[in-house]
This record gives sequence, structure tokens and C-alpha cells, in this order.
Amino acid sequence: MSDANKAIEYAHKNHGRFTKELSEFLKIESISTDDAYKPEVEKAANWAADHLRGIGIENVKLLPTGGHPVVYGDWLKKPGAPTVLIYGHYDVQPVDPIELWESSPFEAVVKGDYLFARGSSDMKGQVMATLNAVESIMRTGDFPVNLKFLLEGEEEIGSLNMGGFLPKHKDLFKADFCLNPDAGAISADEPTITFGLRGLAYFEVHVSGPARDLHSGLFGGTVHNPAQALAELIAGMHDSNGTITLPGFYDSVRPVTDQEREATAKLPTTPESYLEQTGVPALWGEKEYTPALRTGSRPTLEVNGLLSGWTGPGSKTVLPARAMAKISCRLVPDQDPAVVQKQLIQYLEEHAPKTIIWEVKPLHDSPWAITDINTNGVRAMAAAMETVWGRKPLYRREGGSIGVVAMLQNICGVESGLVGGGLPDDNIHSPNERMHLPTWHKNMDAFIHFFFNMK
Amino acid sequence: MSDANKAIEYAHKNHGRFTKELSEFLKIESISTDDAYKPEVEKAANWAADHLRGIGIENVKLLPTGGHPVVYGDWLKKPGAPTVLIYGHYDVQPVDPIELWESSPFEAVVKGDYLFARGSSDMKGQVMATLNAVESIMRTGDFPVNLKFLLEGEEEIGSLNMGGFLPKHKDLFKADFCLNPDAGAISADEPTITFGLRGLAYFEVHVSGPARDLHSGLFGGTVHNPAQALAELIAGMHDSNGTITLPGFYDSVRPVTDQEREATAKLPTTPESYLEQTGVPALWGEKEYTPALRTGSRPTLEVNGLLSGWTGPGSKTVLPARAMAKISCRLVPDQDPAVVQKQLIQYLEEHAPKTIIWEVKPLHDSPWAITDINTNGVRAMAAAMETVWGRKPLYRREGGSIGVVAMLQNICGVESGLVGGGLPDDNIHSPNERMHLPTWHKNMDAFIHFFFNMK
Repeated sequence: MSDANKAIEYAHKNHGRFTKELSEFLKIESISTDDAYKPEVEKAANWAADHLRGIGIENVKLLPTGGHPVVYGDWLKKPGAPTVLIYGHYDVQPVDPIELWESSPFEAVVKGDYLFARGSSDMKGQVMATLNAVESIMRTGDFPVNLKFLLEGEEEIGSLNMGGFLPKHKDLFKADFCLNPDAGAISADEPTITFGLRGLAYFEVHVSGPARDLHSGLFGGTVHNPAQALAELIAGMHDSNGTITLPGFYDSVRPVTDQEREATAKLPTTPESYLEQTGVPALWGEKEYTPALRTGSRPTLEVNGLLSGWTGPGSKTVLPARAMAKISCRLVPDQDPAVVQKQLIQYLEEHAPKTIIWEVKPLHDSPWAITDINTNGVRAMAAAMETVWGRKPLYRREGGSIGVVAMLQNICGVESGLVGGGLPDDNIHSPNERMHLPTWHKNMDAFIHFFFNMK
Repeated sequence: MSDANKAIEYAHKNHGRFTKELSEFLKIESISTDDAYKPEVEKAANWAADHLRGIGIENVKLLPTGGHPVVYGDWLKKPGAPTVLIYGHYDVQPVDPIELWESSPFEAVVKGDYLFARGSSDMKGQVMATLNAVESIMRTGDFPVNLKFLLEGEEEIGSLNMGGFLPKHKDLFKADFCLNPDAGAISADEPTITFGLRGLAYFEVHVSGPARDLHSGLFGGTVHNPAQALAELIAGMHDSNGTITLPGFYDSVRPVTDQEREATAKLPTTPESYLEQTGVPALWGEKEYTPALRTGSRPTLEVNGLLSGWTGPGSKTVLPARAMAKISCRLVPDQDPAVVQKQLIQYLEEHAPKTIIWEVKPLHDSPWAITDINTNGVRAMAAAMETVWGRKPLYRREGGSIGVVAMLQNICGVESGLVGGGLPDDNIHSPNERMHLPTWHKNMDAFIHFFFNMK
């Protein structure tokens, strides 16, 4: 039996315990965006650090970042062998709207092939898949490569402090390749390597007018309702084709090449699969691009939240003093978040009427990233996937944003292999987040093969 | 000393106690729109009933309405003399946004000439002004007219049950005139009689698309964001002049006559006074009408609330499954709330795209009202005001809606005199609601004169 197969046998015997350990990790309410959960985020960092120590990782410590800490650890006992940096994040999204959850978000429940909990798929489950793979090799033989760990607590808030943190620890995180299982797969049967990620620029737009909430009867008709004015501004941000109207928004967008059109057309993500996964009555967006190109290769502008006036039960005849929208853009090469911020401000300067006051608050941003698919790490992962699934992986660009990928490239010179067991219908960022257990198990096997393929 | 002056002397001596009693009434959190406050609303009804008994009113009782009760009481010891029905409401608006209140909304605080509390101006203060006037006459002599009381608990939710309640009690509320102090004055120096009120049609509009909240990176660009779609629909409800675009919306609106233009032009409500009272950077609305005509004689469509997606602190890259707007129209003669509902639905049928699902939930409505200013009651009130202020009152149409006025006209045949001590900068329906104490005192005096003028 090969060393890889010994480790895989160990992993298979321990699936039950691995699920229990993951459930413990999922119990911790590590919502990074909300200060009220700070102690829970810290607790999750310590839990991950303890687990690393438990499986034989050395020099484990929490590194301060200015925000939530980074968990570091290493195992560097193979001089001459490559060093793999394992990336993960231990923070999770908020759980709202809580009333739509069918089980408690922080009590993992297994139903059929799925484990349900906030963070199960994004990405405590994926983190544990790598740690379980590492443990399985450690317990059954000699580890074939050197290891480093970077587990962050701010991915869900755009890796706010990573840009300041990484330059101070350039050498600590030097590695030959970064295994990043935060990307997900197209389907359970189609192993996927993601080579492109969209960037992000996230803002709050505030509109105000009256000095205070007004009685809609006494003043309605004489002042520009801030909720209406905000709606008018938002409505103008797309044309009828779904194209974004911020001035110059597409100037630096790389055109989609014929080659990319052809490659994307081969993916199993069809208009029908998008309809099925989203449940919308009809798809929407730029007609000249397929849905897969719209999410992978084209930038977007989305309203993530709206708030104004009276939103409780019943009626209140208020003319609200202010209105707020959370608005974020997914960015593609070669867009720059700072330039997009200027374009949003220019749009408001050009379109906001004199009857209201507006303000843009940038909340966070992260750059887009493209990985070279010819690096050793990507080849080792592709071969590992082929061994486990019996088919070559699909290569795609993904619509999400993982800020650390571009930062590791630009600051530490480390290329990332973006993989993961998250599936499109895992409800990540939504109620009833879940993880597909058979895919989780296959990923552990693939990670074991990957480490041996890297040596 | 005349009987009226004896009563006025009594009132002046008791201003301090009247303020203390009002403060007790204001302590009761009688927010009618929120079921959680039901016991407080009931408590306010009982407080008002006890107070009526205390000042000598007879047959005081709480009448069930299907919702919050009506407080009834009478004093009918002057056969042959006219009967005055005193209308008031003991319910108040919600207090959100609570963080903008400078003092606790249910702890009345006097600062300078103002008493601050939710309900101080709208309208527990106005109710107590009438009750204090009645007490002052009762304690100092013989009451000149017969009295009936109708104090409701659902005015702030559009007198939801009044339309079913009044026809069952047609005879009970028969009267020669209704004194309704829920209208307010143009300024402290300008006593005002309101002869027209706008009606109201209040809706929730819900837009949904995806079956659940989606990850904006994975699906952004392929589905019509419900918050954006709602914004687009709201944006289309007015043209660039501020004119409402619902189909047929103005068909039954009575044109503003030259006489009305001239009368309104004489009011001291100028564009400058609107700017000052609202604090907006610039006024807005139909250019062909003055602000006073826009609030009094023209219908409106206002967004009272907006809610979608993530509205907490920080960023969440959600593509929300749904979005909601509270939207209400102020209506003028001869608009019909039921027709306006059809017009809103027709607008959505014509403009909502197939990429989303929409729904209209009617929350409540109330009819517009015009009072005949030549009735005895209005004349008696005008004379009383002239005695107290030393000048004739101004007559105006007001932008607010008081459903009971049209119902008393149509169901019981009772004409209302709309007066009151509420001033435009009293922050009614807003944080830091307040009442101008000198105007409150003058109104008590005017009400005393009014009762004697009616005999």
C-alpha cells in the first residue's frame, strides 16, 4: 500500500470523528463583521490553533493584525522539499435572516448527505478537510513536504487588515505554493480549479434631506423624499440591458476573448442551471454574455442592503430624514477598487439632485486575481483530483472575491491553487448553509494525494 | 366677571397641575401600530376615561371596536342647547429612531416654552387642552352646552375600525358640531382653522426574485437584484417634475381654482418657511404649484420605509432574496383610496419586469374631507380665537389625514371644526416631539370661549 493510500485509509476510518470535530468548530459564532461577536471570533482562532497543535503542527501562534488575529503554524522538517502554505479563514457570515433557518445556525445537523450550519461550506468545513488530510498523513508516515498555515479571521469582511499585515511577515509566509480551499466546485461530480477571482469594492451610500423625520401629510410634496431619491440614484446605476452606468466603469475591463467564450461554453453552468440554483422567475443581465461569463468575467454592481424610515409592522406616515444603501461592485481585470470608488462618486456628482445631500462611505475592497495554471502546485492538485474523481478537473474563473489571493501574489510572491468542496447550492452567505459530506470526504483524499504529488 | 372669564381665571391658576396631569398621560406608551404595546394602549384608554369621570363627565365607558377601544362619555343636562362632540385620540406614533431622541420619549420634559414627549403635540396635549377647558367651566359655573366625547385609540393607524364602529353607534355620536383639535396651527401667532384634509392610501410593496439570499459573487450579474428592481419601480413613480406617474392618478383630482391659489398665497407658509421648517437643502415638487398648494391641494406618493438585505454594521456580500417598501399616497378631492390601489397595481403590471415577483399589500386608507366653514361651530371657534389672539384665524387645507372627519360627516352627519395647538416644528411623528406651552394655554382659553359662543 502506498503512503498516500495508508493516509487515505486512516482518513476513511476517522470520518465520524472528523465530523464531530468540525461540529465543535461550527459551534463557535465567529461572525467577523459584528463587534458583538469579537470574543467568539477569538475563540474560533484559539480552537483552530489548538487543533493545529494537536495534529503535530509546530510554532503555532496567534499573530495580531489590528483586527481579528491570524493563526500561524508550521512544520518545516523536510529541507530541500517544497513548502506548501495552507490558507483558510475561521470567520463566518452573519446569520440573518435568522427566521429562515430550518435548524439553529450554530448547531451542526446532518441530514442525508449534508451537514447544515453557518460556516459548514464557507469555510470551516474546507479548513478541516485540509487539517484532516494533514493529520491522516502525519499519523501514518512521514510528511512529504514542508507546511505553513495562514488562517485568518477577516475574510468575510474583505480581509481588512491583511494588506497591512502581510508586508510585515513577508518571510514568514514565503512558500512555493498556497493551497486555498475557499473556492468550491461546479458540482459534486466535477472537480474544479478556479484560476480567476473577481475583486470587490463595497460602499455605503447615504442620502439625507430633512433635518429630521417629517410628517408625510404636513410636508409631503414639498421635499425630495430621501428614500425616493436614493431609489432614483440606484435605478440609474444600470441601463435596461443591465450594463453599469458609472462613468468609465468598463474602461479598464479586459474584453472577453473568443478562447474564454469557448472554454466557458464547455462548463456545465447553463442558463437552466442558474435558473434552478437561484429560483428566480427569469435570468437577468447583459444579453451579450452568457450567465457563466457574467459571473466570472464581467463586473457587477449589486445592492446588498436598503434601509430607510419605518420598516416595522403596520403603517407610519413618516417622510424619512435619511436612507442608506449598501452597494458593492465585483471587479475583474484590470479594474482598480480605488478608481471604482471615484467613479461612484462621479456618478453621484453628476446625477444627485440639489434637493438632497449624499455621502459615500467605502467599507472595504479587495483586488481581483488570476492564477497561473501551469505552476507545479496547480498541476499537483489537478493530478490528485484526477486520481480521486477519475476525471480531469474543470478550470474556471469565479465570481467571488478572496482578497488574500492577490495579496499573497503581490506581497509574498506565492501563487495559490483555488479548490474546495463548496457546491453552488450550499447556500453560503444565506440561511441553511450546508456542506456536501461525500464531496468533503473526496476532497480530503485529493488533498492527501496533492501533498505526495508536490514532493 | 363673565362666566367665560371666571373659567379662564381657573384655568390660568391650574396651568401647573394641568402640565403634571398631561405628563402622567404621556408616560403611557400607547403605540397603536405595534401589538406589543396593546396593554399600554388599553391603559391610556382607562386613564382618559378616569379623567373624564374626574371632571364631571357621565356615562363614561370603553366601547369595543374590534381593535383598540373608543372612550365615550357625555354630559347632557342642557335640553334645548346644542350638543358638542369632542374628538381626540389617545394613541401615539412609534418612537423610532429612538437614538435621535434627546430625552426619553415617554418622560415629559419641559425646556423653555416646550414640553417634550411622544404624543405631546399629536395629540395627548390637545386632548388635555379640551378636557382642561371643560373642567375649568364645570368647576366655576354652569356648562353652557351639552357634551359628548369620542376618544379613539387607532388614529395613528388610520382609524382602522372606525368605519365599522360608527354605523353601529350612529345615534350615540349624533351632535351639532364636532370640535376636533387634531389639526394644528400655522404658527403660534396665527390661529388657524383647517377646512380641508387629505385622504390616505397606504401600501406595502414587496419584490422578490431568488428563492433565498444569494452570494453576490457567485450569482451577481445573472439575476435581477430585488432591491435594485424595487428601486427602479419606485424611481418610475414620479417624473422629473415630481408628478406621480401611476396611470390615471390625477383623473379625479379637482383642479386648483384661482380663488384657492389667491387664498393660499396669503398664508404665511412661504417657500422660505418650508425650507426653514424642514432643513432640506432645496425644496422639491411640482413647479406649477406653491409648496402650500402642494401640501394642501395636491396628492402625493411618499416612500415611508425601505428594507432589504444586510442593514447592520459592516459589509455582507449578499444578493438579497427580497425587498420591501412602505408607500403611501395623500389623496385630495375627489380621489378614492380603492381606485388608487388599482392604479398602483396597474403601474406595477405595466412596469415590473418578468425577472422579479411583486405583491401589493394594502395597509390602510382614509378618505379626504372638506368642512363647510359657514357652520355655527366654525363661526363660534373663529370668534373665540379672535378674542384670545386678537386677530381673525387663517383658513387652510392641510396635508394630513384624519379619517374620522369624513366618517363623522358621512355616517353621523356631524361637521367638524379642525383646530389645535400643534405647530409645524413640533416634530410630530419624529424624534423629539414637543408642544408649545404658551399656545397650549391659549387654546384652553379659546376652547372656553368657544363653548360659551356655542350656546
